[in-house]
Amino acid sequence: MSKVNGVLLDITGVLKEGDSPIKNSVEAVERLREKGIKVRFVTNETQETKNSLVSRLSKMGFTLTEEEVISPCPAMAHELRRNGLRPHLLVHPTVLEEFDGVSTENPNCVVIGDCAEHFSYENMNKAFRVLINMSEPLLYSLGKGKYFREDGELVLDVGSYAACLEYATGAKSKIVGKPEPTFFQTALDMMQIKPEEAVMVGDDLVSDVGGAQGCGIKGILVRTGKFRPADERHPEVKPFFIADDLYHAVDHIISLL
Amino acid sequence: MSKVNGVLLDITGVLKEGDSPIKNSVEAVERLREKGIKVRFVTNETQETKNSLVSRLSKMGFTLTEEEVISPCPAMAHELRRNGLRPHLLVHPTVLEEFDGVSTENPNCVVIGDCAEHFSYENMNKAFRVLINMSEPLLYSLGKGKYFREDGELVLDVGSYAACLEYATGAKSKIVGKPEPTFFQTALDMMQIKPEEAVMVGDDLVSDVGGAQGCGIKGILVRTGKFRPADERHPEVKPFFIADDLYHAVDHIISLL
Repeated sequence: MSKVNGVLLDITGVLKEGDSPIKNSVEAVERLREKGIKVRFVTNETQETKNSLVSRLSKMGFTLTEEEVISPCPAMAHELRRNGLRPHLLVHPTVLEEFDGVSTENPNCVVIGDCAEHFSYENMNKAFRVLINMSEPLLYSLGKGKYFREDGELVLDVGSYAACLEYATGAKSKIVGKPEPTFFQTALDMMQIKPEEAVMVGDDLVSDVGGAQGCGIKGILVRTGKFRPADERHPEVKPFFIADDLYHAVDHIISLL
Repeated sequence: MSKVNGVLLDITGVLKEGDSPIKNSVEAVERLREKGIKVRFVTNETQETKNSLVSRLSKMGFTLTEEEVISPCPAMAHELRRNGLRPHLLVHPTVLEEFDGVSTENPNCVVIGDCAEHFSYENMNKAFRVLINMSEPLLYSLGKGKYFREDGELVLDVGSYAACLEYATGAKSKIVGKPEPTFFQTALDMMQIKPEEAVMVGDDLVSDVGGAQGCGIKGILVRTGKFRPADERHPEVKPFFIADDLYHAVDHIISLL
């Protein structure tokens, strides 16, 4: 098998939970860097800006730059500008700045991100009405996660709310984020490596492991974050390896060198 | 064709919008009664009790009794008691009393109704967590409507929020309400008539017209309430007749006698 030259890391549930690093995850990232392995952070985080995320991770002891982070909002903003689209933004207020300069007047599409408590009936109705008034409703979803773990509890993620709008309007959402192949490809392009030289480590079996493996990248599932025992018996997605945590995953990656 | 002996009427969007009767709808119901046609009110209303609904309709000028109304909450409460189920109730606070005497301790299913502004992130997460912790999530949805019209605006209905929980948990919701056949059958049983002697009048192409026609009842779509011109070109559901409003629908029914 090919040598591993690059590792893609999910953030929430792999590096950290809430504001705490997961045990030995800071050391695990350092070990990859010491071995000369390129690292990129591939996240579906849409509750905070890249800038704020990197600053928060740095405070926890991680060493990383904004350029190493691939997240949905900047990719979405780029796509909107490129296609001259004017979105109705159903996104968390903290990430609005990542859409600076994108016109939202007379919207011709809806962008849904993880809004947490801002997923109110009122906000959902506003987005719904934009879609139902379009002859062909155009809905972009920043990831399609079902749920994630926060402060020790599972909470609904953006994909579930996108499903609500899809059912109501008949739209089929276009995904910007994992598990969409172009999202992983961006990380590979930045590292200038081929899929078979890369490993993705994540706690989401479908978005992280399934998405990566769909692109020819090996996927490692960690038993932290939103991991649930039933994930090990999924009928379709079979991880390349299942690790107790990121440190264990890195052990395995290094054993392959 | 068979004589029409019974008419099933949807309420919101057919008899009334908000607190106002739709033009000539009071007279339309009276005409049916004068012709000796049995009438039942078959609604997916879960934002208020039967009692409150009947009292509100009476104030608008309609003549009807609670016994003539078939609505999801009492049917659901009956089903829960019959099967010894203990629900987590994600329903509008005003209808909680329709579940009096149903134990909700240590829940083994979730019941979702139209909660309007109570469809908060917090309330959705509570219901989600009950489901995700069950080995086989059991979700009952009080109807499966996509949206309805309220105060002149379209708003999301319970079916869309049920779709959110279905996507997140893998549950397939069981419907209590239209378009579920047993719901229409209850109305026929009460009137002691056969499906072919009945007509359903509604503004929801799928729940009212499609549901009724699936049971052999003729379905009339009205161009009031949530009706949208695209409904007339639906690929699958073809109404028996399309009427401008209830009065027009009753004209047509009487012409069949």
